Amino acid sequence: MTGAAGSVAVIGAGTIGSAWAAFFALAGRPVRVADPGHGAAARIDDMMVRARPVMQALGTLGAAPTTPVLVHGIADAVGTAAFIQEALPEDLALKQRAYRAVEAHAPTDALLMSSSSGLLPSVLQAGLAHPERFLVAHPCNPAYLMPLVELVGGTQTAPAALERAERFYQALGKQTIRLQREATGHLVNRLQAALWREAVHLVAQGYASVADVDRAVTEGLGARWTVCGPHAIFHLSGGSEGMAGFLQRLGPAVEGWWADLGTPTLDGATCQRLIEQMQAAAAGRSPEQMAEERDRLMLRVLALRAGPTAAAGT
Amino acid sequence: MTGAAGSVAVIGAGTIGSAWAAFFALAGRPVRVADPGHGAAARIDDMMVRARPVMQALGTLGAAPTTPVLVHGIADAVGTAAFIQEALPEDLALKQRAYRAVEAHAPTDALLMSSSSGLLPSVLQAGLAHPERFLVAHPCNPAYLMPLVELVGGTQTAPAALERAERFYQALGKQTIRLQREATGHLVNRLQAALWREAVHLVAQGYASVADVDRAVTEGLGARWTVCGPHAIFHLSGGSEGMAGFLQRLGPAVEGWWADLGTPTLDGATCQRLIEQMQAAAAGRSPEQMAEERDRLMLRVLALRAGPTAAAGT
Repeated sequence: MTGAAGSVAVIGAGTIGSAWAAFFALAGRPVRVADPGHGAAARIDDMMVRARPVMQALGTLGAAPTTPVLVHGIADAVGTAAFIQEALPEDLALKQRAYRAVEAHAPTDALLMSSSSGLLPSVLQAGLAHPERFLVAHPCNPAYLMPLVELVGGTQTAPAALERAERFYQALGKQTIRLQREATGHLVNRLQAALWREAVHLVAQGYASVADVDRAVTEGLGARWTVCGPHAIFHLSGGSEGMAGFLQRLGPAVEGWWADLGTPTLDGATCQRLIEQMQAAAAGRSPEQMAEERDRLMLRVLALRAGPTAAAGT
Repeated sequence: MTGAAGSVAVIGAGTIGSAWAAFFALAGRPVRVADPGHGAAARIDDMMVRARPVMQALGTLGAAPTTPVLVHGIADAVGTAAFIQEALPEDLALKQRAYRAVEAHAPTDALLMSSSSGLLPSVLQAGLAHPERFLVAHPCNPAYLMPLVELVGGTQTAPAALERAERFYQALGKQTIRLQREATGHLVNRLQAALWREAVHLVAQGYASVADVDRAVTEGLGARWTVCGPHAIFHLSGGSEGMAGFLQRLGPAVEGWWADLGTPTLDGATCQRLIEQMQAAAAGRSPEQMAEERDRLMLRVLALRAGPTAAAGT
């Protein structure tokens, strides 16, 4: 039994899974989604409506979009799949139960990819009959908007599986990055946690308000980080010698800054301060309103970068 | 003796000072720049050429731009200034010598603002006859492009001086943030150092390449951080309860991630790895070429955000 060319199965139609389903379908792939719960159909419909104009603007909308087919059980979803995207809650036993059903019903050459942000692939793939075709493929939310997919293999993952996953996502317009070793939180959540730790420290110790710390990022650092990663920024600060020049002249200063960074805890007083000041910064807007503003603006930033005059080779 | 309304003096025409001079002049302020060194005139001319189209695109170009007047000494620059922007190298003795010249020749009601990224205002203002009108006003580079200015008072700074500085920069189209306590690196450099520390750890420990860590930021996190600060991101992950919901459900998980973050040192092996992999990521482009690509793209991101349909109140 082999998978129909390019057919995708999505397991779980929560927030992550339904965004994946809409993305794959609008990119033109036949999609079957397994979810026995109430509300799955409505969530997928909602994501299809949201995703279409976004993918149009980003240039990732396929020439012949499909419509996801919602089914009750995993057996019915994976029978002809070439790619299986698992998007269940972060519960190891739940995911591993689903993998047993996948192995019982899916083509043996189908790639099995978990959207997990928190669990390590070596742990997830333990006990599989075909662990070599398993990997983590972690999207940034929402998957139909954000270009990045983090690929992480476990100790039993075949290199060919990672390469095939890379080709699969890249053909759909995604930007893939690959971890060479498993790490809790992969790259994106670790980097985000590192920035937030100092952001919390600055508020907890009264250096600045939540609003001003956030504006230091949106008005100062964010635009730079959209076009230039943290390593490249310092490479470009090193003059014509690049990173070597930077490290030689400013390495000791940076180590001094690192030593001065905070290690806050989320104790009661800190949480209270974050909640109150965030409320003030929101200035009456609900989280839902703010999220819509964010996605609308983020689309404009990403569409600009996806445009024809965007950085060649950046 | 009082300053001519809105006249600006810039002390030092290095990279920072000449960018400030171009910014103030193109915004329409009369500007006198003190720099006795060779090359100052050429640097200012160069910045004027670079800054004009940038400020045009951002909407910060004034209706009646001026041309900076370059003079040899501080006495000649500050005599009629209302605002004095010091942009000398990070050398305490050098800066304090300049402040003595300022106090001898400037109107007593002129604001004295240091561009220092590394020195604390309480240290810088020690020994001034009028420490109450002194503060740090630290730009992001280049000052004519990046909207952010960090304002930091020392123990002797008058609150009115901070308010006046805020109004001054805001009238020129800048976004100001204010530190409530002095901190090494203010906000921007601390947050940048925190992100880079984990970025270095991930490379040093072989989790991922320099190129992939950078792409985790440019393709994943950067667009979000352009429109949403690190606190607001988690506020928007908390559903309708916002930050309170996020902290309750995910606070313990975040503390777990924090505990797992790295504390690298810039030892020989780490530096070697960073330099070699950065070279590979640059793929033949010189730092100068990459910096031009960065500035060109960053302008497009910032111009988009400055546009008429950008987020009201974000």
